[in-house]
Amino acid sequence: MRGVDPAWLPDGVFRPIGTRRTLIRGSGPLVDTVHTEVAGACARFGGRVDLDAGPGGAAYDLALELTGDGDGSEAFTCGRADGRTTVTASGGRGLLYGLFHVVRLGEAAFQGAYPPELFRPRVALRMLDHWDNVAVHPVMGQVERGYAGGSLFWQDGRARGDLERVRAYGRLLAACGINAVAVNNVNVHATEARLLTDRIGEVAEIAGALRPYGIRTHLSVTFAAPVVLGGLASADPLDAEVRAWWARAVAGVYAAIPDFGGFVVKADSEGQPGPFAYGRTHADGANMLAAALEPHGGTVHWRAFVYDHRQDWRDRTTDRARAAYDHFVPLDGEFADNAVLQIKHGPLDFQVREPVSPLIGAMPGTRLAVELQATQEYTGQQRHVCWLGPMWSEVLRFPVEQGSSVGELARGGLVAVSNVGDDPFWTGHPLAQANLYTFGRLAWQPDADPAAVLDEWIRLTFPDPPEPLTDGLHAVLDGSWRTYEKYTAPLGVGFMVQPGHHYGPSVDGYEYSPWGTYHFADRDGLGVDRSRATGTGYAGQYGKPWSEVYESTDTCPDELLLFFHHVSYGHMLHSGTTVIQHIYDTHFEGVEEVEAAREVWASLAGLVDPARHARVAELFEEQLRSAREWRDQINSYFFRKSGVPDAHGRRI
Amino acid sequence: MRGVDPAWLPDGVFRPIGTRRTLIRGSGPLVDTVHTEVAGACARFGGRVDLDAGPGGAAYDLALELTGDGDGSEAFTCGRADGRTTVTASGGRGLLYGLFHVVRLGEAAFQGAYPPELFRPRVALRMLDHWDNVAVHPVMGQVERGYAGGSLFWQDGRARGDLERVRAYGRLLAACGINAVAVNNVNVHATEARLLTDRIGEVAEIAGALRPYGIRTHLSVTFAAPVVLGGLASADPLDAEVRAWWARAVAGVYAAIPDFGGFVVKADSEGQPGPFAYGRTHADGANMLAAALEPHGGTVHWRAFVYDHRQDWRDRTTDRARAAYDHFVPLDGEFADNAVLQIKHGPLDFQVREPVSPLIGAMPGTRLAVELQATQEYTGQQRHVCWLGPMWSEVLRFPVEQGSSVGELARGGLVAVSNVGDDPFWTGHPLAQANLYTFGRLAWQPDADPAAVLDEWIRLTFPDPPEPLTDGLHAVLDGSWRTYEKYTAPLGVGFMVQPGHHYGPSVDGYEYSPWGTYHFADRDGLGVDRSRATGTGYAGQYGKPWSEVYESTDTCPDELLLFFHHVSYGHMLHSGTTVIQHIYDTHFEGVEEVEAAREVWASLAGLVDPARHARVAELFEEQLRSAREWRDQINSYFFRKSGVPDAHGRRI
Repeated sequence: MRGVDPAWLPDGVFRPIGTRRTLIRGSGPLVDTVHTEVAGACARFGGRVDLDAGPGGAAYDLALELTGDGDGSEAFTCGRADGRTTVTASGGRGLLYGLFHVVRLGEAAFQGAYPPELFRPRVALRMLDHWDNVAVHPVMGQVERGYAGGSLFWQDGRARGDLERVRAYGRLLAACGINAVAVNNVNVHATEARLLTDRIGEVAEIAGALRPYGIRTHLSVTFAAPVVLGGLASADPLDAEVRAWWARAVAGVYAAIPDFGGFVVKADSEGQPGPFAYGRTHADGANMLAAALEPHGGTVHWRAFVYDHRQDWRDRTTDRARAAYDHFVPLDGEFADNAVLQIKHGPLDFQVREPVSPLIGAMPGTRLAVELQATQEYTGQQRHVCWLGPMWSEVLRFPVEQGSSVGELARGGLVAVSNVGDDPFWTGHPLAQANLYTFGRLAWQPDADPAAVLDEWIRLTFPDPPEPLTDGLHAVLDGSWRTYEKYTAPLGVGFMVQPGHHYGPSVDGYEYSPWGTYHFADRDGLGVDRSRATGTGYAGQYGKPWSEVYESTDTCPDELLLFFHHVSYGHMLHSGTTVIQHIYDTHFEGVEEVEAAREVWASLAGLVDPARHARVAELFEEQLRSAREWRDQINSYFFRKSGVPDAHGRRI
Repeated sequence: MRGVDPAWLPDGVFRPIGTRRTLIRGSGPLVDTVHTEVAGACARFGGRVDLDAGPGGAAYDLALELTGDGDGSEAFTCGRADGRTTVTASGGRGLLYGLFHVVRLGEAAFQGAYPPELFRPRVALRMLDHWDNVAVHPVMGQVERGYAGGSLFWQDGRARGDLERVRAYGRLLAACGINAVAVNNVNVHATEARLLTDRIGEVAEIAGALRPYGIRTHLSVTFAAPVVLGGLASADPLDAEVRAWWARAVAGVYAAIPDFGGFVVKADSEGQPGPFAYGRTHADGANMLAAALEPHGGTVHWRAFVYDHRQDWRDRTTDRARAAYDHFVPLDGEFADNAVLQIKHGPLDFQVREPVSPLIGAMPGTRLAVELQATQEYTGQQRHVCWLGPMWSEVLRFPVEQGSSVGELARGGLVAVSNVGDDPFWTGHPLAQANLYTFGRLAWQPDADPAAVLDEWIRLTFPDPPEPLTDGLHAVLDGSWRTYEKYTAPLGVGFMVQPGHHYGPSVDGYEYSPWGTYHFADRDGLGVDRSRATGTGYAGQYGKPWSEVYESTDTCPDELLLFFHHVSYGHMLHSGTTVIQHIYDTHFEGVEEVEAAREVWASLAGLVDPARHARVAELFEEQLRSAREWRDQINSYFFRKSGVPDAHGRRI
């Protein structure tokens, strides 16, 4: 698409297919998509594609065979024998994923022979939530927490007339395995509320653009819809009139979008309406929507991000980290089968380092989705390089209890808040594309090696990369999350950001606020005591072994120490350094690592196209400025407070 | 005026005149205003007014006599003999002020006999600067730092069609002695720039509404006007084409408004354009505008609020407090006669406690205006009771050097940033009206006793107040500024406010910012060393004795200690308590004083009209909430940092 970066689907990645002869068997809308893709590649590179047997006797290099008659199944096999690579799938989606698998393999797909291997996603729902507003919000802008321009979907107060860009987006998402998109912000304002009813046609237009790539469309709705749209006196989920209203509304949605995915709901959270107003539970609320969706095969994703955002900072007993568990665990087993509880991966809010939410291990009778944040709200806002693959992988592989990992427990799906807007590079920072790609691939296979995924992304995005480029990109990206962690809030303490927009340091920015995000630093030490013995008891929300591991400073991992414990500046870490010296050291190191990464990027000038190189180079200047600001504010703050000089005598 | 509070001109204050017989001699527009006022009073209360001798032989209780033929002079005499009170003035403005003098005296004006006394303003220009935007600013709103609703002058992007409210405003201002109003924000945005040229007609409409009350209209202009409005390539003040452009623009202004007052200019300050871009000085810039205004009798008010707002907080040698002096003292003697340098009363920015700006004593060859802030940006934003009379009086009486006070040195005028908007009570908080009134009266007579001015305001605003009401209002207002000081930033250190909107506490809110406003608190102490010996040298900008008084902690007044010195928490104040204990004590006291004031106000319920009483009562709840927040954040911050417990064992 002209003027828009091809991301991980530049023409070149289709060369191995486009130069060969391909046979496609089967029919259906997604087979049409497969055919369009292959035919486009052949048109560019001189190959050939035939549908069904084609003109008899031709020898094919690649066969893409639909063995069933639905689009549903996403699994496929891929093998090679007798000089032919064969992909089979029982569903159209599987065939499409199989095609992109061959694209990812590149020339290797056509070398030698290998037995058929089955590929299927471990997680059925792999979704991006867009926090896009239809009407530009006076404070939050068009995309809440968006750092990549305006919305891909909405422009001038309605759905874009030209959906070419949305189609291109769907294609990129299919190529990394995403199969669901929620097209509007979970904070549903007045304009957006109406997407559910009289403006559903606009959602249907978007759904139509995404459908050819196997992507179902979801909608964020307001719990108050029966009141604000329907004119009812109540939104009580047990009220028959309310339930009937929702049933009619859902029927209207499915009339417009037969394969509609379902709703995303943020209720009784940060001011959004919810069932509490009627003395009902979250399960009552979710189940009402689930009942309306059930006849049509839809799902409600009910967010667990519920806490008191008007907390008194003087009150050290209330602990926001406890809130989701305390609210939802008593409701385990009460949610309908098509109600999914969508849980942020950590107990707070997408900080650079948090423990895994204890709620994830505590809801055996509930379908759970785990929500990650691709948009870099707290991780540099797409002005900093911060590849989140290692963080997400740590989260997804985390053995919650009884051997089950987060990735395994997320039976209701893996969700990421999208980092995409109408920016020419999609994600603002060109290298932030790697986060989107990595999320898709990890959602497909949560135990995948993130470094291998990054390798894949590099080979696709920069076709035939010379070794210095591959090495350089790894050098810049591999450790970027840990680098970001080093120069920002230390040891899991979180939230030392500027209030409101969340960019840049402010150590006390949220310290005396109602948001429940504190560090309690004083002249002696810092951190939040969340132990059972002497603190808020949050550590006790975990099953074994984690409740014990986190309970004691002896066993708590360094990187989460200040999340779980209030310790003195002189406290010795397992790493062998004191907390205060760790703060100084990591902040100096973090900046040095950004300086080094900037140098590496500069050295890649001849190996990357000039526009992309220039954009990243420019952003590195801002990242470095910001990292130095973080270093100096954090170090100055803690030096002033602790009075402890740097052991290495550096100027603070 | 219906639906709008009468402030200090309720009908009742005209009863003593309105029940009597008045003779008015003379003619002219302001005599017409005087006649209208007296005739209105007589219509309400049954008295009589005659122009000139009137129907022969009548005995008059009051004679208002114009002895000259201009409106210019503002002086008047007032005396009483032979049962008649006589006001004489050589100018219409003087006669109007004389009328309001009689209004203020009330029945006492008509009792006994007293010799003629001459009254004349000590300060020729007594101005309110409105920081009003014509087009609502996306961040700053319609009135920058306004806490009383929208603009009185501008609505829906243009001058109000109905100027009745503006006329009523002019009447209130005349009654307290104001004679000039600048009608738009000193930050001149694109829309407002055009008021100078094609939209001058709107300014003329406003000027027409204010003129009958002796008020001249001034306009804030952008230094870049020749470029942004005139299409010139430059705004260089020494460029002949630029000077010719301004001459033409000014001629256009005077064609529309023959008694136009002049310009207010914020140049090379916080991003506003100025002469620096052309390598010229502030004197070059001001003098260019002065030259254009001079043939018409106009004045340019050139603001001295110039400093580096992109300072590096790590740099402790740069001191924003020094900036105005460093910029302007070298230019003393270079400004034209009709160029007035307008200096904020303190070196920073309208904090609750600052020393007097040293620039005021250092420009003997320049006409100076001193700028105060009636709008309570840093003093409670008209949600807190904070009567600023005592602060302004301290400033105006401050003996700068060689026996001259600030009030005497302000030969170019006294200016206040207005606290008025389209709120029904004019000032948001009904008791903030007292600030507006007090400013007017102190501008007329800078050495007036503020308590006597407050008494005047009480008697006018609450006609015939019973003693408990007078006592109650004094109890609520007299000490309110010191109360506010107690519960906010301590000992002159300033700027512990929330960034941006400046309401509520944030101890470190500006500590690591580029704005040059720091407290440097660490675990040992706090404050800014501005001494010559070891600090930024700012103390040396004062003449004697102040340069010596402020230089040493031995002589520096307690209330300014942290403005001038960095001291330990254990430093003993002259008051006999330590700095840290002073912080704790004053913050507890401040809240207790608010609680007490709230109780006093509650006790006045039957003595104040219900709407006014309810509004103040409601605001007291917010003031108390906010004061407690201030107390707890400040005390917690310094307890955490110092580790020193409260000597009285109170919970912090």
